[in-house]
Amino acid sequence: MTDVNTTPALIIPDVSELTLEEKASLTSGASFWYTKPVERAGVPAIMVTDGPHGLRKQREGGDHLGIGDSVPATCFPPAVGLGSSWDVDLVHRVGEALGAETSIENVAVLLGPGINIKRSPLCGRNFEYLSEDPIVSGVLGAAIVRGIQSKGVGTSLKHFAANNQENDRMRSSSDVDPRPLREIYLRGFQRVIEDAQPWTVMCSYNRINGVYASEDPWLLTQVLRDEWGFEGLVVSDWGAVNERVPGLAAGMDLEMPSSNGVTDAQIVAAVRDGSLDESVLDTAAGRVLDLVRKATDGAGRVSGPLDVDAHHALAREAAGRSIVLLKNEGGLLPLAKDAALAVIGEFADKPRYQGAGSSMIDPTRLDSALDGIRDLAAGEVVYARGFSNAVDAAADEAEALRAEAVAAASRADVAVVFLGLPARLESEGYDREDIDLPAEQLAVLDAVLAVNPRTVVVLSNGGVVALPFAERVPAILEGWLLGQAGGGATADVLFGDVNPSAKLTETIPLRLEDTPAFLDFPGEFSHVRYGEGLFVGYRWYDARRTEAAFPFGHGLSYTTFSYGDAAAAVGEDGDLRVTVPVTNTGDRAGREIVQVYTSLPGGTVQRPVRELKAFASAALEPGETQTVTLTVRRKDLAYWDIRLDAWVVEGGEYVVDVAASSRDIRSTVAVQVDGDAVRLPLSRASSIGEVMAHPVVGPMVQAAIAQMMGAMDGVADIMPDGVDASKMMESFPIGRAGMFAAGDSNGAINPEMIDGLIAMGNAPQD
Amino acid sequence: MTDVNTTPALIIPDVSELTLEEKASLTSGASFWYTKPVERAGVPAIMVTDGPHGLRKQREGGDHLGIGDSVPATCFPPAVGLGSSWDVDLVHRVGEALGAETSIENVAVLLGPGINIKRSPLCGRNFEYLSEDPIVSGVLGAAIVRGIQSKGVGTSLKHFAANNQENDRMRSSSDVDPRPLREIYLRGFQRVIEDAQPWTVMCSYNRINGVYASEDPWLLTQVLRDEWGFEGLVVSDWGAVNERVPGLAAGMDLEMPSSNGVTDAQIVAAVRDGSLDESVLDTAAGRVLDLVRKATDGAGRVSGPLDVDAHHALAREAAGRSIVLLKNEGGLLPLAKDAALAVIGEFADKPRYQGAGSSMIDPTRLDSALDGIRDLAAGEVVYARGFSNAVDAAADEAEALRAEAVAAASRADVAVVFLGLPARLESEGYDREDIDLPAEQLAVLDAVLAVNPRTVVVLSNGGVVALPFAERVPAILEGWLLGQAGGGATADVLFGDVNPSAKLTETIPLRLEDTPAFLDFPGEFSHVRYGEGLFVGYRWYDARRTEAAFPFGHGLSYTTFSYGDAAAAVGEDGDLRVTVPVTNTGDRAGREIVQVYTSLPGGTVQRPVRELKAFASAALEPGETQTVTLTVRRKDLAYWDIRLDAWVVEGGEYVVDVAASSRDIRSTVAVQVDGDAVRLPLSRASSIGEVMAHPVVGPMVQAAIAQMMGAMDGVADIMPDGVDASKMMESFPIGRAGMFAAGDSNGAINPEMIDGLIAMGNAPQD
Repeated sequence: MTDVNTTPALIIPDVSELTLEEKASLTSGASFWYTKPVERAGVPAIMVTDGPHGLRKQREGGDHLGIGDSVPATCFPPAVGLGSSWDVDLVHRVGEALGAETSIENVAVLLGPGINIKRSPLCGRNFEYLSEDPIVSGVLGAAIVRGIQSKGVGTSLKHFAANNQENDRMRSSSDVDPRPLREIYLRGFQRVIEDAQPWTVMCSYNRINGVYASEDPWLLTQVLRDEWGFEGLVVSDWGAVNERVPGLAAGMDLEMPSSNGVTDAQIVAAVRDGSLDESVLDTAAGRVLDLVRKATDGAGRVSGPLDVDAHHALAREAAGRSIVLLKNEGGLLPLAKDAALAVIGEFADKPRYQGAGSSMIDPTRLDSALDGIRDLAAGEVVYARGFSNAVDAAADEAEALRAEAVAAASRADVAVVFLGLPARLESEGYDREDIDLPAEQLAVLDAVLAVNPRTVVVLSNGGVVALPFAERVPAILEGWLLGQAGGGATADVLFGDVNPSAKLTETIPLRLEDTPAFLDFPGEFSHVRYGEGLFVGYRWYDARRTEAAFPFGHGLSYTTFSYGDAAAAVGEDGDLRVTVPVTNTGDRAGREIVQVYTSLPGGTVQRPVRELKAFASAALEPGETQTVTLTVRRKDLAYWDIRLDAWVVEGGEYVVDVAASSRDIRSTVAVQVDGDAVRLPLSRASSIGEVMAHPVVGPMVQAAIAQMMGAMDGVADIMPDGVDASKMMESFPIGRAGMFAAGDSNGAINPEMIDGLIAMGNAPQD
Repeated sequence: MTDVNTTPALIIPDVSELTLEEKASLTSGASFWYTKPVERAGVPAIMVTDGPHGLRKQREGGDHLGIGDSVPATCFPPAVGLGSSWDVDLVHRVGEALGAETSIENVAVLLGPGINIKRSPLCGRNFEYLSEDPIVSGVLGAAIVRGIQSKGVGTSLKHFAANNQENDRMRSSSDVDPRPLREIYLRGFQRVIEDAQPWTVMCSYNRINGVYASEDPWLLTQVLRDEWGFEGLVVSDWGAVNERVPGLAAGMDLEMPSSNGVTDAQIVAAVRDGSLDESVLDTAAGRVLDLVRKATDGAGRVSGPLDVDAHHALAREAAGRSIVLLKNEGGLLPLAKDAALAVIGEFADKPRYQGAGSSMIDPTRLDSALDGIRDLAAGEVVYARGFSNAVDAAADEAEALRAEAVAAASRADVAVVFLGLPARLESEGYDREDIDLPAEQLAVLDAVLAVNPRTVVVLSNGGVVALPFAERVPAILEGWLLGQAGGGATADVLFGDVNPSAKLTETIPLRLEDTPAFLDFPGEFSHVRYGEGLFVGYRWYDARRTEAAFPFGHGLSYTTFSYGDAAAAVGEDGDLRVTVPVTNTGDRAGREIVQVYTSLPGGTVQRPVRELKAFASAALEPGETQTVTLTVRRKDLAYWDIRLDAWVVEGGEYVVDVAASSRDIRSTVAVQVDGDAVRLPLSRASSIGEVMAHPVVGPMVQAAIAQMMGAMDGVADIMPDGVDASKMMESFPIGRAGMFAAGDSNGAINPEMIDGLIAMGNAPQD
């Protein structure tokens, strides 16, 4: 492929050159995948198509549902895998490859990445998302966007916003408080917008606090554009439009797919009857024209043919960096190449490498782990299917398969057992009901373990699963869904040709009951309360001191790393620079993902025990030491202040934990951070305690209260030892202090006096 | 005391006979404890005063804060103790005694009971509340109200509503979803209103979902009066009025205490300028007149003098029924009267018998447990103070006290160690920060256990405490706060003169981190999210399968009980009658509290694992069997349906667990209950699945979709084995089904067709 596009740039007209009807026509699709052209004015249709981990471009002549078969494309690891790499550079390179394939196929926008927070492991679409943490989601999401867009095509950051389940997704209201909404669910979107300016943002199906995302002016205009500076176009998720005219006014520019002209006519009528200002339509249609302009100017685009081999190799590299070594007791891994192996489990031969739904890619090729193992092995490799993933598998078949597996395992040096979720258990469109692996698979594993304790488990799953065998199995590889080259990558890791370096971007719980959203997922009657608030993922387990099977950020290597003492300082730009020396203390080259968490003990707002704020990786030869530098942005220290409706960095001594996982802190350092200036005016609702703390009027009030308390004989007598009566009084709003003079018309407290005090406190100070 | 009041009934005028100013004057207090008289019209002032577990009538000439010393009265066990009796008859008798004392003192209304739900063990005022469960709170609350009001005086059911913490109580908004609000936080209030018609309801300080309880028309009028049929008067908690005029319009009749006329003038001005309809004022003032009328008609009232001995004896009986035997390994209790005892711990000598704040009673007398034990013991009783509860206790004093305790314990047959919360740790006005007993007390216990394993712990605490010693101590009595006669009652139970029968009305957790509201209590910046939703108390522990130290409903006896097979049937009134034979299988008389829990497996709404719906007790001689009958009201099976904004009883097979505690189910029976008829109209927001299930139009839609799916070649091919594409489609709102014909202007789906379908579905059926 070459880096020059052969298509000459078109001259796209300004919105002022179009008629009302033409402008309206631009704000909805022509069909499932195309925008509308305006031939009179030289505006071409452009094509957008599903992703995110590959191009799903429907063949010409496909059905109207848009789920017919598609042009082959490289299936890279879905987000659940790729995210586990924590590797910004790799993710950017995968993005470049995705962009190239999009460009070659003359598609204008690849509909991804999806960066929604994994609120519950039950969400059927978790495989399409990156993490339970917004920093991981935001940093890696931005890398994908930059990579794709470097090839002259657009992305669609989705699903905006608070779309964390599939159940009733077209109607359900995500009822979430301002702090978790801002600090958890929107923070990653904000980061991608600010760092990478995706061409488009896709609004989600759901409602947020009762308002459809597709018609929420707060979300689509105030937050997205006014606060974050988004410059692109908002497109609806397919079918997400509820009422088109309010949606347009809210900032929802492009409806997809086609409404067959119905909603275009509604917009024209609304402009004509004066209920919609034409400037609103001009803005939306102008953004569609901007998108068409960017999609047709040729900048950065590449042409074909696709280098299938190179992209397959990249997909294998990415898959190798996606596999998490959860456990490796006694150094069972990597396997000796001449070991006699029993490879057990249908997933080894028939890989589960992506999830069902709109993201399903028709891969250019497909590797199995079994083939990969046979390619690399020098010893005997016996395969036993172990179990059947078919819905209608017969019981006697199960018994025979298990017996075959046991026989193979009993003769092998090591049994490698591939377990996972059958495809039907996770898909776009519906959620899981539990986090269990099928009982039949667990039974096969138990039977294998009974004859060969040298057993390695390799997992294939898009959402996390419970691992009831974790204590009994010496080695576990979490293989997620790894894309078309995952089979070879699994073999690479098993034999040590690739040293695993991935880490968990989500907690693996012991039980579903331990998960934060267990009691309010997926809600009912089209409402889901985000009752766990800020405490999503590891934030929950840490705060409640709940054990996890494997914690957020965990992942082992075939080598080991030691951390020196961390240092942290505030730079001139206000960001924190954290440095830590990391040494490879083992005997093979490896890569360590270093994590930085912060907390502010004694702060005025509730905070998680620790929160991830930065990460970086170091590739180290045996014995090598590198000083890793990480930047914690000042803005990422901010909490969302519900009194001010604004981000606030609270001043104080922040604790910086440099860690190998959220529960493996290697070095801790404290750093003083100056806070943002916050001044809240006094009002009648201010508590007496707040007024007493005021620099100007506080001393006056303190004196008055001391006098009042002194006058109340007997109060101290009846209060038990140590009971703090002043605490009670301090919580009174100053506007109600008149109560303390109840029935005493000569009472020292009257409304005018209180208002005077408030005015005095709010007067400008020198 | 006699049952005839000497005061002749007054003629209280109708509201129409009063001037505007006179009417306004009635809607706020004259002082801290008195309403205003209207002398011209013959309306006297009446006095209201604090409770709830005794009369706190301030002496004449007290201070303006209303917390000066008060007239001696019997201090019955606070709600935390009395509630643990689960004894409706006893609670009613205590109510009668409270009413008599109120009547004797010429007080019109005793300000109680408090029935707020114990949402978190940290709430500083939990000692004034009955339970974490609304049925316990409602049933016992109604019994107190009926008892008190039988003596011709009123009650004030408080604090209405969702006032579950002290922190920032004057401003904080309890942000709670409709189902928990209705099913947990309001259900008890509803029961008391409907069953007992308290003369007054006291609105709470806090806001609910952003609206002050004191000015919430939904709460004070729609729910309280229109739905529940409340006929009395709403009085503000002292200082709870925010804006008086909106409060009056919302249904807040009487402001307390005095506003020195400020708010009366606001009301007059609002009527004059037309912003407040005078009929609103007439209603409120009329309710004040009604209250004065009831308070002065003499019906049921008694006169003095108070029979101090009889009430003290009742207080002792009630305290004996309040003590929960948590554990009794090896039958260490009851103690032999001739055993040599070491009584250890300051609480034995200086009882903590009530909590601090507005409910503090000046008791007529006060028994200590040490005196009670000495009165009943026949053997040697050595007392050692063990520790000091003083704030400023010195370290060397602690050491000496501990040594003395160890010496006493080492020489005794049994050590009885009194542990508890110092008074300063729990009070109205502020919350606790942990649930720990002071470390010094735990150290004394450990030292005692080391020399004498035959150790009994007796607890004195208003809120639950963690019991880290529970595994190591053979016998534990939870003594809560027991009122003025608790000392004697404790001795009664220790020696077996009273066989304990109380049970826990709240879960004792293992750790604060395990409690439902741990992560959002007490909130911040005047908002607290009730994130645990329905899952308050045992509902949380059961749903998450979390261990507790002692579960809700638990309590032992010195005898044992066996349960036979339960039976359940729906009566003609729709209520469930549950019967179960219970046998005393031990060798002494005892009383067993039988609990009925229900659940509806497979129901359409989320429900707790089981919920208490009824309880009863049986007093049984050794070997005796009684058939206990319990009534589960049909309305208590209902859930609050957020679609209909109404209670709905879902039909189905309910599971009825008859239990000795929430985790000790003795017999289970199923019963079929017919559901309420619920019909939701179809709309464009109805999902395709919902439309497909419609009896009339469903079959048509099913056929159309089958045709559409059949036309989509290739869909089945690309979906993995078992993935259910139809699930995805079924969640689509029917109003957006046009998407499936996107770009096909001949598409089979258009808006008119959909609206026609909806109309057909909503047409009246034969």
